[in-house]
Amino acid sequence: MNTIDKAMAAKQASFKLASISDQKKTGVILRVAELLKEKQAWVLAENQKDLEKAKAENISQVMYKRLVLTEEKIDGIIASLKDVAGLPDPVGHVTVKRELDDDLILEKVSVPIGVIGIIFESRPDALVQISSLCIKSGNAAILKGGREAQYSNRALFSIFIDAMAEMDSRFTNCLQLVESREDISELLSLDQYVDLMIPRGSNDLVKHIQANTKIPVMGHADGICHVYVDKDADLDMAVTVSVDSKCQYPAVCNAMETLLVHRDIASKFLPKVAEKLVENNVELRGDEATQNIVSVIPATEEDWKTEYTDLILSIRVVDSTDAAIEHINTYGSHHTDAIISKDAGACDAFLATVDSSSVLTNCSTRFADGFRYGLGAEVGISTNKIHARGPVGLEGLLIYKYRLVGNGNIVADYASGKKAFTHKEVL
Amino acid sequence: MNTIDKAMAAKQASFKLASISDQKKTGVILRVAELLKEKQAWVLAENQKDLEKAKAENISQVMYKRLVLTEEKIDGIIASLKDVAGLPDPVGHVTVKRELDDDLILEKVSVPIGVIGIIFESRPDALVQISSLCIKSGNAAILKGGREAQYSNRALFSIFIDAMAEMDSRFTNCLQLVESREDISELLSLDQYVDLMIPRGSNDLVKHIQANTKIPVMGHADGICHVYVDKDADLDMAVTVSVDSKCQYPAVCNAMETLLVHRDIASKFLPKVAEKLVENNVELRGDEATQNIVSVIPATEEDWKTEYTDLILSIRVVDSTDAAIEHINTYGSHHTDAIISKDAGACDAFLATVDSSSVLTNCSTRFADGFRYGLGAEVGISTNKIHARGPVGLEGLLIYKYRLVGNGNIVADYASGKKAFTHKEVL
Repeated sequence: MNTIDKAMAAKQASFKLASISDQKKTGVILRVAELLKEKQAWVLAENQKDLEKAKAENISQVMYKRLVLTEEKIDGIIASLKDVAGLPDPVGHVTVKRELDDDLILEKVSVPIGVIGIIFESRPDALVQISSLCIKSGNAAILKGGREAQYSNRALFSIFIDAMAEMDSRFTNCLQLVESREDISELLSLDQYVDLMIPRGSNDLVKHIQANTKIPVMGHADGICHVYVDKDADLDMAVTVSVDSKCQYPAVCNAMETLLVHRDIASKFLPKVAEKLVENNVELRGDEATQNIVSVIPATEEDWKTEYTDLILSIRVVDSTDAAIEHINTYGSHHTDAIISKDAGACDAFLATVDSSSVLTNCSTRFADGFRYGLGAEVGISTNKIHARGPVGLEGLLIYKYRLVGNGNIVADYASGKKAFTHKEVL
Repeated sequence: MNTIDKAMAAKQASFKLASISDQKKTGVILRVAELLKEKQAWVLAENQKDLEKAKAENISQVMYKRLVLTEEKIDGIIASLKDVAGLPDPVGHVTVKRELDDDLILEKVSVPIGVIGIIFESRPDALVQISSLCIKSGNAAILKGGREAQYSNRALFSIFIDAMAEMDSRFTNCLQLVESREDISELLSLDQYVDLMIPRGSNDLVKHIQANTKIPVMGHADGICHVYVDKDADLDMAVTVSVDSKCQYPAVCNAMETLLVHRDIASKFLPKVAEKLVENNVELRGDEATQNIVSVIPATEEDWKTEYTDLILSIRVVDSTDAAIEHINTYGSHHTDAIISKDAGACDAFLATVDSSSVLTNCSTRFADGFRYGLGAEVGISTNKIHARGPVGLEGLLIYKYRLVGNGNIVADYASGKKAFTHKEVL
């Protein structure tokens, strides 16, 4: 099938999938876990083909590491499949139940979105994770993996197909794999069939997708996160939190990129924090006020807009909490930002006015993720302003529909005054 | 200010607006209601200028009727302002409160989306309604009204500006009015500043906006709604509901456009329903099976895809509930669809598998709206698959953010095993 046929088939499949029981969906996921163990040798052999091609093509060490599957990694994948299977059924939750009249009952109930398009890079384990999340939430999915993981992806995909075929014919066509680079642009044009795109990869991939489709995209491009150290901060705490925010894992989206420091404590705080950051091999860039206190490379306007995802940090001295908030709302990426302060008023203003998906007081920006937030499963981190924001759990793959159950009721009776709405909450 | 400056100003204003109390937002709305009464003569005089221009330009009777303001209409507007003011504060609802550790508390809290772009046609009362909904929900708004209502819109807009200026300087710039036709295309390009577009007007307007912006659009273009009469239907009920769904107000989006009839009862049901529909001046179009039973114009493939918004109905005979569902999912607009049946199994299958924002059993499609659903206020009806679907109340103008309040917590302690997450629900 070509991409459009696959998308149409996935759309048709999504209607059927909406009515499959949680027991069967969970059954498929657990069966995938079993098959993955049974067929482990074969999966590793297929992965080996990708690895050999990768070596021949001289791909980067980082890419190669992502691509590698091992027995240990497969055990990890199996454990996460079991975690997803064990999540409560997200479909069919009734969040509103309202009597419109004594024989006319309205319910608002959670349902799958429909067809999710997923574009991911290198890691073959991403295919398993996202496919299991889509099945658990009753969504059809079109998967576009990296060319470099072609053999691994095909092997893992075929295990899902087998597990679904064993379970129920209504799973037919609900997962689709597309492979070629040209398929991406075709997929992005299929807004008639694909309800939501989830890109999982580099900022460039996300930006490319956001710029080239009418399908809603859930995710984030940049993660330009800030820590603001207020004049009323516990300075030792501020040092510890700053170092953790920058250094605990600098390559990820919730690491700090810019440190904002209140002018009143700058001369006391900056030498302390700079010492620790330099110990951790962080390159410091700073505005003029910072340059006057510690040894830093001069920062330019461009630095405030840059996600380094590396051991580089820009530092700016600000005159007030308001100025810090303004900097964050102007230059930030609305991802995750923290204030360090003992002043409840400053903390409240920061929490209320910083327009980011996660706003933090007195803790590290690195906490902003699905596992640490206790979401059960993380679909991704979103900086969107509608639907789902911040670390997104399974609920990001759901929408709702209204069900209205009547007894021959007609609007004319209510319009004429013959009958009246009761609008009584039942739930 | 030009459109881009207005959008930037609205974005900046939206950050401040997020922290204004419900009391002040409600105060503004009630003050608008007062000022509207006080300045009624002036508002009517400004409206008169639009009406005179409209007469000179020979606009249609329908458009003219929409444009007219009267003392009575203003009383209606004032009543609806008071309704909006009286709604519970939608901002600041904590929907998740979770202890990540004993000194690290996570909250998920409802917040305004930011900047809403609204494009509406003719009716000046739409400006008042949508502005009050945006203020109540803490959103900045950029309003683009029809040129034909220019004087009325300016007058009503100035009342909002006055009421906000009296209340609090933080309301400055949070409502913006743009007027010229060129402003629409500029507004649609400002995805950096506008978070959500809400078009209120014709299908063509909605389609134009959906096709020409990267900003998420909330709404619906077509309303191709179906009633399916099952073989186990109460046929008298089916007649009554069909007539109400088609005739009670044929010009609106939740009126029935296509009637699907199970083959087993077609020869009994079609003559009954056709008689009543023809009595109500409905033009009937039907497939071959229908033509064999009652007198109808032959329907073409095009009819299944058409929203008539008029006294025209297409009829198709189907072999099963599954065939009816397939027709609806293929040709429908995922808006509102109903089954008439006494068979619980058929009803359940219909509710589960029809992929529409409202799915109904044994009642009229005309029930699908915000007032009848008891939403308090209706922002619009959405056929989107993310964010908000069906009749949308104030909650469609809200998103959430995560707030994490700590005590110097760092991720390194949890990664090293020195500390462990508790993940205890507090709410």
